[in-house]
Amino acid sequence: MMKTTISRAERTKQMIVEQAAALFNRQGYAGTSIDDIMRATGLSKGGLYTHFKNKEEIALAAFEHAVQRVTQRVRERTQAVQHPLDKLRAAVDFYREHIFTPPVEGGCPIQNTSIEADDNNPALRERVQAAMDYWKHGISHILRKGMEQGSVRPDVSVEVFAVRFIGTLEGGILLARMYQNVHYFDVMATQLAEMIDELEIKMI
Amino acid sequence: MMKTTISRAERTKQMIVEQAAALFNRQGYAGTSIDDIMRATGLSKGGLYTHFKNKEEIALAAFEHAVQRVTQRVRERTQAVQHPLDKLRAAVDFYREHIFTPPVEGGCPIQNTSIEADDNNPALRERVQAAMDYWKHGISHILRKGMEQGSVRPDVSVEVFAVRFIGTLEGGILLARMYQNVHYFDVMATQLAEMIDELEIKMI
Repeated sequence: MMKTTISRAERTKQMIVEQAAALFNRQGYAGTSIDDIMRATGLSKGGLYTHFKNKEEIALAAFEHAVQRVTQRVRERTQAVQHPLDKLRAAVDFYREHIFTPPVEGGCPIQNTSIEADDNNPALRERVQAAMDYWKHGISHILRKGMEQGSVRPDVSVEVFAVRFIGTLEGGILLARMYQNVHYFDVMATQLAEMIDELEIKMI
Repeated sequence: MMKTTISRAERTKQMIVEQAAALFNRQGYAGTSIDDIMRATGLSKGGLYTHFKNKEEIALAAFEHAVQRVTQRVRERTQAVQHPLDKLRAAVDFYREHIFTPPVEGGCPIQNTSIEADDNNPALRERVQAAMDYWKHGISHILRKGMEQGSVRPDVSVEVFAVRFIGTLEGGILLARMYQNVHYFDVMATQLAEMIDELEIKMI
């Protein structure tokens, strides 16, 4: 019989990743020191380096964790509805409701990490690209399903729509967090709602 | 007779601000140390502190400088055309052309600073809000002029349009810089072009 046990080492590693994810997402990669992670985890430097080679390795694991956490929370919402376009609407609603209380403190990990990684951290930027690709594919998959079922207009480019959707959503998150006012997200959400409505096959 | 002279002190201060603007925009606030600024300017710590109280004061001045520089470059383009909607189109073209060669190294200072300031730097966030307000007002002003002249549809909210315009543009910058591929900006630019076209009063 198989037994699923998580070793003490794995639990510690997981705890480091969770604590670090919040720090990196809030303070950025450059703004988070090994000392910060030591304080947040209560571990010594030696304790941290038992599990990770260096700060970059922690950052990569923390980013993966942050993205997985957001993805899982969004998916809980999108899976609760059936119509492909309602899934997109549910995703927008989720971001709206969590603009100041995101699954990982500090906002959208893709946005935060992207800004910092674009100029000076190729390894991290690759992970951000992979996370964005995964998100794009998720949206494309939903739309293609809808086209097969006949509930989404077949004459649109799913790839173009996915990029527009993400770009518009990220713009809304950026503005709302900067102004600390959800109104700015709502303006972009209305634009997203119009974009989604345009994909609908109208029943006559 | 008045004589406009710039003192040596003012020239040094200006040089610090220019060098710091590129550093902060590329590396972020947390990622830029006083040592980095010393290296870039060739000044000693004492030399820097003759002109500025601390790193934050340099960052605020550097941000103002960066925004002014971008604003001036965009304005050169928008002033070269007459029709209000062509001014918006010219702005989009400018950002497209300079996505990887921005007026200040590192990308859009509003975007970069916003991400970092949203969680932990209220003074800097206030400046980012002010810069964004100024940008919004600029777009609103162009549209109102167009409405007065009868070249822009009068039945749209200039405030809503301005937010959508900026949010969509910033989303495009974010995606293109993250993927290091202008294609992603182009997708958002097409969306912007459609939004601008919708404002046009069609001559029958």
